Amino acid sequence: MTDNSNWYIEHFERTGSAIGYRITGKLDEVQSPFQKIEIFQTTDWGNLMTIDGAIMLTSKDNFFYHEMISHPVLFTHAAPKRVVIIGGGDCGTLREVLKHKGVESVTQCDIDEQVTVMARKHFPELCDSNNDPRAELMFDDGVAYMANCPAGSVDVVIVDSTDPVGPGEGLFNKAFYESCFKALKDDGILVQQSESPLMQLELINEMRTEMGKAGFGSFKTLPFPQPCYPTGWWSVTLARKGDSSFDFRQADSAAKTFDTLYYTAALHTGVLVTPPFVKAALKG
Amino acid sequence: MTDNSNWYIEHFERTGSAIGYRITGKLDEVQSPFQKIEIFQTTDWGNLMTIDGAIMLTSKDNFFYHEMISHPVLFTHAAPKRVVIIGGGDCGTLREVLKHKGVESVTQCDIDEQVTVMARKHFPELCDSNNDPRAELMFDDGVAYMANCPAGSVDVVIVDSTDPVGPGEGLFNKAFYESCFKALKDDGILVQQSESPLMQLELINEMRTEMGKAGFGSFKTLPFPQPCYPTGWWSVTLARKGDSSFDFRQADSAAKTFDTLYYTAALHTGVLVTPPFVKAALKG
Repeated sequence: MTDNSNWYIEHFERTGSAIGYRITGKLDEVQSPFQKIEIFQTTDWGNLMTIDGAIMLTSKDNFFYHEMISHPVLFTHAAPKRVVIIGGGDCGTLREVLKHKGVESVTQCDIDEQVTVMARKHFPELCDSNNDPRAELMFDDGVAYMANCPAGSVDVVIVDSTDPVGPGEGLFNKAFYESCFKALKDDGILVQQSESPLMQLELINEMRTEMGKAGFGSFKTLPFPQPCYPTGWWSVTLARKGDSSFDFRQADSAAKTFDTLYYTAALHTGVLVTPPFVKAALKG
Repeated sequence: MTDNSNWYIEHFERTGSAIGYRITGKLDEVQSPFQKIEIFQTTDWGNLMTIDGAIMLTSKDNFFYHEMISHPVLFTHAAPKRVVIIGGGDCGTLREVLKHKGVESVTQCDIDEQVTVMARKHFPELCDSNNDPRAELMFDDGVAYMANCPAGSVDVVIVDSTDPVGPGEGLFNKAFYESCFKALKDDGILVQQSESPLMQLELINEMRTEMGKAGFGSFKTLPFPQPCYPTGWWSVTLARKGDSSFDFRQADSAAKTFDTLYYTAALHTGVLVTPPFVKAALKG
């Protein structure tokens, strides 16, 4: 919703809060078979992508999310080689994952090719690594893709989805998590964006419960700033098989040879200690 | 500004972004000699205080700010006994500071008594410690208070002010910082709220420059989530005399006997490593 000609404001019913940007106009729009994608030009945040009216990313602040859904999980796994990204059509997560030289192949499976078409046009920096020979871009149903994935074939599954409504809904339940569990090797890790740790702790608990029903035994929720999402504070939740640790390869992280804007080994160490009020509210 | 009857939306001109809350009505308002203070009831965030239309705090999320402007600086100082808070009329910072048993006296000097009157009525939990015998509440000009402070008498000065416009303007320049420098002991520390580390790095650099002109030699900016402030990501900046360290009393912090909702020793360690993009932009 645009409340007047100069500001794009999204009202988040579930959190009772709103976030918006000053815009100079609409650059592009497309109605895909799945959703309406719009691109706006902002005065201070670069380009803004919305899907069905929901703010997805801005040029200015997407690095928080893309770094935090990628680097913590990849430095937690001992030696990630085979990675699957479900969703992630803007290709920003793919770019971060491919910074890890040990990763041998990444399949990105987003249901909507138009998200990637729009990203190539309006967020070209996120698509820098789309032609990496290790990358495969598929446009298909992520639920079906995971269900058909060979058992024990994947090191890390990254669920980089929209909210648990609309096309993203099937990515937040036991059936989907069972597919992920089966596709992952014994030391494999699932990571999924898990909404606001300030206002949506109930949802995070529901995710953990469903993941647990699917067989996952250990969980860790990592918070980080994400200005364009409700409350400006967001999270990813990692899940491992059995009673596993979330200690990470600290020396490798500290010695990483690629640049990041937000992620550091020290930050990673810090977020492993869950803020007291979040810890008190989380199950499992 | 209220864009319709159910949402209170603040448009931040300087960052080109907006944040707002769903409200059920206005609970109170007062025009003080300095500013207009209003209290709204929200659907999900408790009460909301605005000053001259700018969102100051909500019941739900003020703990981030109050904890992060208090505990890092107090655990950085070797043995803080004498603390001065400039601004801070909502008394939330005072409450956090008084959790430190070693603190012997705290003077809170806010120019506007009506902020505290409104806090007592609508955020009573923040005023829990106002009657602590170690606390002194003054309603006076903070610039004058610091200028008249005996030299070398203070361990920690906390500048918990509004933005550098209006009544808060005089708290962001060399003259004020010179008063703080003089009032602080040699191992004293100044800490001040320093706006968004995503969008207002120029302001943080200006603050550091002015602090440097006043004699301060070492600076550390600590970021933290603050959903109700522009970009949802905020910061405090610490300044010390000479070439001083920002290492903190980690063992004391880890063994603290009081509760916090967000602050932990691990978090403190993590935020001491400045995010790479912030570090690249900061001077000094």
